[in-house]
Amino acid sequence: MEAEKYKEAIQHRKLIDVLLNHHLHADLVLQGGYIINTVTREIYEADVAIKNEHILLVGDAADLIGSSTIVEEVRGKFISPGFIDSHMHFESSMLTATEFSRLSIPTGTTTLVGDPHEIGNVLGVHGMQEMIKEAKTLPNQVYITVPAAVPDAPGLETAGEDVTAKHMKDLLNDDNVQGIGEIQSFSNIQPVYQNAPEIIDDLVAAVSYANSIGKTVEGNAPGLFGKELAAHIISGGTHVSCHETTTKEEAVEKLRYGVSVFMREGSSQRNMAECVRAIKEEGLDSRRAMVVSDDMVPEDLLKDGHMNDIIRRTIAEGIDPVEAIQMATINPATHFGLKDVGMLAPGKRANIAVINDLNEMTIDKVYLNGKPSAEKGELTIDLPSYTYPESVKNSVKRTPVEAKDLHILARGNKARVRSIVAIPDQNLTGAKEFDLNVSDGVVKPCLEQDVLPLLVVERHGRSEKIGKTFLHGFKLRSGAIAESVAHDTHNIIVTGTNYNDMVTAVNRVISMNGGIAMIKDGKVVGDLPLKVGGLITDELNGKEVSERVSELSQLAKDDLGCDFHVPFMHLSFWSLVTSPEWKITDMGLIDVDKFEVLPTVIE
Amino acid sequence: MEAEKYKEAIQHRKLIDVLLNHHLHADLVLQGGYIINTVTREIYEADVAIKNEHILLVGDAADLIGSSTIVEEVRGKFISPGFIDSHMHFESSMLTATEFSRLSIPTGTTTLVGDPHEIGNVLGVHGMQEMIKEAKTLPNQVYITVPAAVPDAPGLETAGEDVTAKHMKDLLNDDNVQGIGEIQSFSNIQPVYQNAPEIIDDLVAAVSYANSIGKTVEGNAPGLFGKELAAHIISGGTHVSCHETTTKEEAVEKLRYGVSVFMREGSSQRNMAECVRAIKEEGLDSRRAMVVSDDMVPEDLLKDGHMNDIIRRTIAEGIDPVEAIQMATINPATHFGLKDVGMLAPGKRANIAVINDLNEMTIDKVYLNGKPSAEKGELTIDLPSYTYPESVKNSVKRTPVEAKDLHILARGNKARVRSIVAIPDQNLTGAKEFDLNVSDGVVKPCLEQDVLPLLVVERHGRSEKIGKTFLHGFKLRSGAIAESVAHDTHNIIVTGTNYNDMVTAVNRVISMNGGIAMIKDGKVVGDLPLKVGGLITDELNGKEVSERVSELSQLAKDDLGCDFHVPFMHLSFWSLVTSPEWKITDMGLIDVDKFEVLPTVIE
Repeated sequence: MEAEKYKEAIQHRKLIDVLLNHHLHADLVLQGGYIINTVTREIYEADVAIKNEHILLVGDAADLIGSSTIVEEVRGKFISPGFIDSHMHFESSMLTATEFSRLSIPTGTTTLVGDPHEIGNVLGVHGMQEMIKEAKTLPNQVYITVPAAVPDAPGLETAGEDVTAKHMKDLLNDDNVQGIGEIQSFSNIQPVYQNAPEIIDDLVAAVSYANSIGKTVEGNAPGLFGKELAAHIISGGTHVSCHETTTKEEAVEKLRYGVSVFMREGSSQRNMAECVRAIKEEGLDSRRAMVVSDDMVPEDLLKDGHMNDIIRRTIAEGIDPVEAIQMATINPATHFGLKDVGMLAPGKRANIAVINDLNEMTIDKVYLNGKPSAEKGELTIDLPSYTYPESVKNSVKRTPVEAKDLHILARGNKARVRSIVAIPDQNLTGAKEFDLNVSDGVVKPCLEQDVLPLLVVERHGRSEKIGKTFLHGFKLRSGAIAESVAHDTHNIIVTGTNYNDMVTAVNRVISMNGGIAMIKDGKVVGDLPLKVGGLITDELNGKEVSERVSELSQLAKDDLGCDFHVPFMHLSFWSLVTSPEWKITDMGLIDVDKFEVLPTVIE
Repeated sequence: MEAEKYKEAIQHRKLIDVLLNHHLHADLVLQGGYIINTVTREIYEADVAIKNEHILLVGDAADLIGSSTIVEEVRGKFISPGFIDSHMHFESSMLTATEFSRLSIPTGTTTLVGDPHEIGNVLGVHGMQEMIKEAKTLPNQVYITVPAAVPDAPGLETAGEDVTAKHMKDLLNDDNVQGIGEIQSFSNIQPVYQNAPEIIDDLVAAVSYANSIGKTVEGNAPGLFGKELAAHIISGGTHVSCHETTTKEEAVEKLRYGVSVFMREGSSQRNMAECVRAIKEEGLDSRRAMVVSDDMVPEDLLKDGHMNDIIRRTIAEGIDPVEAIQMATINPATHFGLKDVGMLAPGKRANIAVINDLNEMTIDKVYLNGKPSAEKGELTIDLPSYTYPESVKNSVKRTPVEAKDLHILARGNKARVRSIVAIPDQNLTGAKEFDLNVSDGVVKPCLEQDVLPLLVVERHGRSEKIGKTFLHGFKLRSGAIAESVAHDTHNIIVTGTNYNDMVTAVNRVISMNGGIAMIKDGKVVGDLPLKVGGLITDELNGKEVSERVSELSQLAKDDLGCDFHVPFMHLSFWSLVTSPEWKITDMGLIDVDKFEVLPTVIE
């Protein structure tokens, strides 16, 4: 990418020629629109003159119009810098970056900061590098932040590859790599400090290296205050973000501590309305407040939009439209040190969203690098679908399981067991004990109490372990669901009303080389192959994935009797050991706060 | 300096220990002050806990106080991040960075971004590297921005050394070098583009290299608007400042274009009151408005202070005190990408100004790197004076001149001549023609019309040339003044009522190896040796320089009859070819706008 820098120098030199030589002219002029100035927080009428990929001038461009200049009349429309999503995971959409971009670009989002934490957990450095390769092919700006620690909780879970400080040099020295992504291995800070201080040493080393080469680091400090928040900020090198701030009080304290508060407002978790109270009610300077999506499902991208919809909702909360747009343009550009985007000014990249209605954030047209790229919600440029190499498509390294592998064993007729308690619309869980029947040494699922086996089957060919516990409150009435999407190490997670369907479900995921499978009475009710790392499909586009997921949710309800909201997404989070209270990994039932494995069957 | 980064990592790790291990405590707690939060633009009561060189926490620090913690009660006082002067020249004070810091630190300024443009013109890369060496010895943060082009106007003046893009690698790859300083060779943009486009190629190359290694670039765009302003911004890589903005209209346009407007408010030029109208009257977001000193004389530092005085004046213009402090803390820190200063937050450098009265900006105490360093206007740490090596003290490479060398020649009895017109308190000049008497082929000074010879004697051992013209309006009644401070190439500039005293003055400057000399009737009336590059003394401290300069100004008035305000400073700017209209260099009389040499005697 070094050559890109020379190219920019040459392009800058040409821009100077056009500006100072009266015989030269702009390629394109957007004439007479209302400029959204994200630096001065103003709206005023002006032209935008463009040459090649960059903005020449924002002002009166009459002088720059020649016979070959395309003049686009935009009177009455609002001209904004393209939007930035500062924190998002492509994996959550199950789409390639290309298919995500196909849905995102027409909504005015021109810069994505993707965190391939999930693929990193499965395929390590190689997997992330393949995603970086894809990013480079795209016309929108796609930056990648990489995890500094995989797995999040070493010793308590098994990832496909480990990533530590020693991998940072290989990962970070790439122009498309923005820096280190969310340091969630240090979110639950006090237990980590007590139990695994070596994680902190490694993290500080990785962070210091990143900063020394000018790369950024993102934090992740849900619920932290005072000393713990301070320690988290320092562990991230002091200039960090947090995208899991959920209360006004947290937002106030984090902003005061200089944290960039990434107000999350994606498909599942929505925290902006609460966080933005810090700005509205306390009158805080909003320069370090930003909006991000974190996790988006294709359905929402198709139906509501992307950053434009998040900005719209922010305006609806009472924030001035230009201030809301600052939160998705200049504020993140400044946070990341991206000097070519986030504002409309001379020499900046001509990434532009033309907006019809400011409060509704309806996007009329989008320019990428000076070229018209989308109009009225449709991409107008050719964007070939991207196919990943085979090297990332054989990530399920596990021979099929048998019923005896999955059985939860106990002596006698009754067993007292620990069970995770499902909480709707939350990553975190409850914890409860139940008495279950035992037959032939095997603890039986209990539909009456809604307590079903919940297992994680290691699939990276490393530990070969199967972690076993129970799940209460999922309301599954028959069959089984398994998937290779299981945060963050993405082993195969499975639950079901009987061990046989669970076996079939797990083996179906194995045979598909990753994906989601629903089984009833030994038969496949529905499935979705996700061959790229067991997380992403490169065979379906956003619309197709959206339809398939809707169909699977409906089947889960109709055929398996589960009317839990987005059941696959919830299931995938019950293995996430960075949020409380109990979680399941291939190592067993994890007490997150104590940072230890608990026996499921209480002897 | 690479080792500094490892040191910071180790220090960060220790801070985390103190925060999370209940047995460890802060070194120092400032208890119960009013925190100036420069991120949220708030004031509230909180403690500041410090360990070693960094801030641990801003909040309730009760938990962090142990038996060995020093607790400093600051109730009722205001606790601010130390101030940043984003653009200043040590040379203007004629002091070493050390002696400047001795006066500046007690006023609450803890970060200086010095531009050694002057010493760079005399001694090139070597001279600047010696200043960088000094910077590294200081307890305050001293960053250096280096010129990308010396001289400003190649072909029209002779510097001691040339600096071009090819020197950037040697200069920029140093942790104390922030980036490229004011690109004033491209201020007067249209004439440069027409006459010397190769300067632009070289500048864009230097800027692109700087940006590619993460360094910043400062602009300098006095009076530029529209296309010329856009071209200037792009030539600087698009993320630039301007410290010579003098009207509200310029400030509005520059802020809209994303330029960091460094509102200048030093000893001579004061533009803040006008620039700040853009914020007050138009309600613009002030995140890219900053205050800087540019040029400070020791007398003002001693009498009024430094950034605290500039902030005080900004508040007096009607700007909210915290917003004014943002302009000298977080705004510049963000502009430069300095992530360890500009705010009080966990892990940031403990550079702190304790303020007694917010509107008056009276500084009670100053902490540098967590250590009390000044109190009630006096430095409380040991700061040894700094002596420069001999290699920068022999910068006057010229044999003595004789009268015939200085004579301005013409035929006949009368000559029509061009003359620079002095304008009080301005760098720019007027232009006028006069008729003068000629005797024995030599044009005579004319006291009646106040038209005196004004010459620049090359002193770098390169061109050996002497540029000659006349000066009108300086009101010198007898004798001569010469000095080796003559912007920007710093040859010897001299004016006088008779050629003989001019010869003696120039030869006095040569024999001192640089400095200022006033001569009357062949005798030295007063002088000030400036041995470091002919610009700076390392033999006198700020108080001594201040006294000597006052004394010289008084002598100029009493003995030479010149009551022009700060005569030496004005004289030194009449050779500056980056501001209009006519200027004098060793090459002759320069028409700045036409970028050409004019004959002084009109044939």
